[in-house]
Amino acid sequence: MDEALTRDDYLGGRLSLWQPARGYRAGIDPVLLAAACPAKAGESILELGCGVGTAALCLSVRVPDLRITGVERQADMAALACRNASETGAHFQVVTADIATLPDAVKQQSYDHVIANPPFFLRSESHASPHPAREAAMGEDTALATWMDVAARRLKPKGWLTLIHRTERLADLLCDLGTLGSVQIQPLQPRPGREANLILLRARKNGRAPLRLHPPVTLHTGEKHVTDGEDYSPAIRAVLRSSAPFPGF
Amino acid sequence: MDEALTRDDYLGGRLSLWQPARGYRAGIDPVLLAAACPAKAGESILELGCGVGTAALCLSVRVPDLRITGVERQADMAALACRNASETGAHFQVVTADIATLPDAVKQQSYDHVIANPPFFLRSESHASPHPAREAAMGEDTALATWMDVAARRLKPKGWLTLIHRTERLADLLCDLGTLGSVQIQPLQPRPGREANLILLRARKNGRAPLRLHPPVTLHTGEKHVTDGEDYSPAIRAVLRSSAPFPGF
Repeated sequence: MDEALTRDDYLGGRLSLWQPARGYRAGIDPVLLAAACPAKAGESILELGCGVGTAALCLSVRVPDLRITGVERQADMAALACRNASETGAHFQVVTADIATLPDAVKQQSYDHVIANPPFFLRSESHASPHPAREAAMGEDTALATWMDVAARRLKPKGWLTLIHRTERLADLLCDLGTLGSVQIQPLQPRPGREANLILLRARKNGRAPLRLHPPVTLHTGEKHVTDGEDYSPAIRAVLRSSAPFPGF
Repeated sequence: MDEALTRDDYLGGRLSLWQPARGYRAGIDPVLLAAACPAKAGESILELGCGVGTAALCLSVRVPDLRITGVERQADMAALACRNASETGAHFQVVTADIATLPDAVKQQSYDHVIANPPFFLRSESHASPHPAREAAMGEDTALATWMDVAARRLKPKGWLTLIHRTERLADLLCDLGTLGSVQIQPLQPRPGREANLILLRARKNGRAPLRLHPPVTLHTGEKHVTDGEDYSPAIRAVLRSSAPFPGF
């Protein structure tokens, strides 16, 4: 690492994570992702594209005795994920690899849950970031279909994929389901009555239940941001500050 | 027709339609569909599976000078659609045909809008109705992919498909888009805070705008049905009784 690091608090101080001071920095998305994963104590989790481990470690705060594996292709981010895991004491193993070419140690396993926060921006519709780590985390040079396929392959039968993504990619997500079914879509609207630009999606390996579309969960109260302070809705504040499970689904 | 007919009022009495007393009878879905079609005066409309003409004729009440073609494969329903068209004076031509084998007169045209209310029940998950007309209207023996493909082919470039369907078919709809894009999904929730089990979907031929997921529109007020009277939300009542355009999107 040739850059300065910051150590930031999550979940109301229950978790402190090292991350680069510049480039890709975790927002609330991985925290929401962790809150939405329906894992139970003792289960196994695979996170695809774990970055510095924010989602995985948030999940480990809420649910005890998880065995978590995180895959991250950027060596410096993976190294920070290792450091974060070791300082928190979570059972969190980090593998430096591209999700499209997983090592045998991961390929030979199957997991109760897969979680993912795939990169958000279409290369065809945006410019590459001049910052390589930000570009690797935000640019989309691994196809969304690959994320879905790898997730489906690594899940146990009836295991759950939970992911968070931009609403505009909903059609791609639903067309890449493969063996995943029992889809549940949880829209996240920025403010009351606004269009949801983020979705949480759950899908179950070999699931056959009808697709469900839940009422939107509102991230921020009020029609617009009017104060310097945060204005998260009470349910979202409980997720972000008190490690509550996600209120929707 | 060997059955009794009823003549029912729609749009607060602006429209009266003949339909069979038994078997498939139009609910509010075609009325909502018509309200959600963004047609302007003078445009051309194709309705796939028009039944007795409910959606087409509701649309003709709200928007003047439309040229509407309806395709219906059940001859008795098509005959009622003709009768309804002629008694309302709308410019509504009915073609008795299966949508998968459209006659040349329709195949050689392209339209500003296509609207459709495809049958709702998966044959694999339900029993056939003992009533043939109800079965033909509600059973799904024409694949949803065919509905989407025929709609896309018959639209002018930048023309809009508007359809209403069960939420559980959302993945199928989004995977069958073909040349349709600029998708907008409008969830319809039965009551406040409930899951939307119906969606309106708009998609534009050759559209390239990002997919949008609108906040749900609520059909009924209150947590549950407590009176004998109707309890439609004010916006939906305006659609159903006053021919207002659909309040969402």
